[in-house]
Amino acid sequence: MSEGTVTASPFGDRLDAAVRARESQLVLGLDPLPSGLWPTSSGWKPSGSAAAEIAGQRYTDHCQQVIGAVATSCVAVKLQLASFERLGAPGRVALSDTAAFARDAGLLVIADAKRGDIDVSAASYAASLLGATETEYGEVLGLGADAVTVNALMGADTIRPFLEVARSVGAGVFALVRTSNPGAADIQDLELASGGTVSDALARLVANEGITSSSGLADLGAVVGATAPGHLARLREAMPNTPILLPGVGAQGGRIEELLPAWQPGPAGGLVTVSRGIVGAGAASATEPREAAAAEAARLRDLAWQLSAAS
Amino acid sequence: MSEGTVTASPFGDRLDAAVRARESQLVLGLDPLPSGLWPTSSGWKPSGSAAAEIAGQRYTDHCQQVIGAVATSCVAVKLQLASFERLGAPGRVALSDTAAFARDAGLLVIADAKRGDIDVSAASYAASLLGATETEYGEVLGLGADAVTVNALMGADTIRPFLEVARSVGAGVFALVRTSNPGAADIQDLELASGGTVSDALARLVANEGITSSSGLADLGAVVGATAPGHLARLREAMPNTPILLPGVGAQGGRIEELLPAWQPGPAGGLVTVSRGIVGAGAASATEPREAAAAEAARLRDLAWQLSAAS
Repeated sequence: MSEGTVTASPFGDRLDAAVRARESQLVLGLDPLPSGLWPTSSGWKPSGSAAAEIAGQRYTDHCQQVIGAVATSCVAVKLQLASFERLGAPGRVALSDTAAFARDAGLLVIADAKRGDIDVSAASYAASLLGATETEYGEVLGLGADAVTVNALMGADTIRPFLEVARSVGAGVFALVRTSNPGAADIQDLELASGGTVSDALARLVANEGITSSSGLADLGAVVGATAPGHLARLREAMPNTPILLPGVGAQGGRIEELLPAWQPGPAGGLVTVSRGIVGAGAASATEPREAAAAEAARLRDLAWQLSAAS
Repeated sequence: MSEGTVTASPFGDRLDAAVRARESQLVLGLDPLPSGLWPTSSGWKPSGSAAAEIAGQRYTDHCQQVIGAVATSCVAVKLQLASFERLGAPGRVALSDTAAFARDAGLLVIADAKRGDIDVSAASYAASLLGATETEYGEVLGLGADAVTVNALMGADTIRPFLEVARSVGAGVFALVRTSNPGAADIQDLELASGGTVSDALARLVANEGITSSSGLADLGAVVGATAPGHLARLREAMPNTPILLPGVGAQGGRIEELLPAWQPGPAGGLVTVSRGIVGAGAASATEPREAAAAEAARLRDLAWQLSAAS
């Protein structure tokens, strides 16, 4: 590599290396709300007086505590952008601070943005989350996430601008293919005249647009809810090299035991995302939230790791 | 109405009244980028030194100039959130300042967010753009938009939380039904086994979830690209009371003359969104950007108004 050239490793390889190094497929989902935060850490004091600023600082304190409690069991965090955006500009600061803290804890950062737009607008979202923006006043850095979730209802026109920015920095993109909510059936499960469902068509799009690197994993991933494991084997067949992000374990009813097809391409083929199941693990017990979260994260991590090794 | 009760008019009625009062269906699309802004207004000076802050202030100055030039010909602005988000937190400040300026100019504000999520995350996006968030430190106001665009790939689970917040403040929601980009064909035009396309299924969802008020217009709208007028008549039949947002006129090739079915329920049945066609109208001529934009907006407004009156 010549001096001055930056060559980012492909996302598939980075993900594979991270999962193997940390022996974990567990992704900590962070979707803080003003009403459900952990007690502040000792000595926490807000600066400023606007409600949004203080709430943003509370978010950051909460997220840092949760990350501190469970990072050793996880490979990544998934940040739900909606949670942060409801605090306006201070929410973006909290998002950025939380992403930096997660990175320092050795975790990959997945921006759960579910963005879907085209052309320069898709490129703008990608710059905001994965890249940077040149201005005549200097460079504006984006969030620096390692991956972003997108919604491809608008077709390949949405996926390509995100992938272009992602590839330039070794980041990845996860497109919604079959989500974990009951209403996913409204559109995604509709049967097509040519056979298969809308989700199958999305899966084909994902398989076609991704580039697979030496690890055997592609840089374009898919989101397939853990609540509908019946779909998973079929969708894995259509996307043999695609890393799959699996939300819906725990609170929504998904079970890790039913996710085996995700790991067919290797241990990084399936990432198990858990939010409330970890962050709120102490709510039903007398345990400290921190200890309960750490114990639950360790349990989920072990379960997934053992199942993936056996599959 | 008893003291202390706030009863917001339904969005359909508000939209109908605004279009009739301003005799315009023209929506000014604002999607600023650091490289394509109008020259700064005289006396403009940035405060602060960070690139993102200065760029955000430039955005605001640009958007205010454009709004000032064309507001009399328009009924609304459509703010492309991606453009603002690439500047991080200062971008959110610019978005908010631009929305406030547009409101003061008598325009409705449409947040072109294309958000798609479920449950509390959808409610968080809705709070961020249409509502407010209660915290123990006080209320955090959202953007205060009059309407927001959403992506319902995740089904009615996405639409309902947005509509719930929207209805509480008299705001509206526009769901993507058939977008203006070539790649829209990848998923939206797929034929279903039960007949019709994915767009037709989205149109049924929109028709079912909207509530029509006394003006004859629903509070749940649709986005149908002006570049595919062949779809418009069919989709209007499936959504007889739905306000339709029509992007794609001008740069993308759509023609106002082909949009007549949009106005079947009345003059507010179709909103014509134009971005580059107005903001960049002076680029090809020796005219001031302001004068060229004002002339082009007036021309487009007259054309749409006359066609809608004749239809």
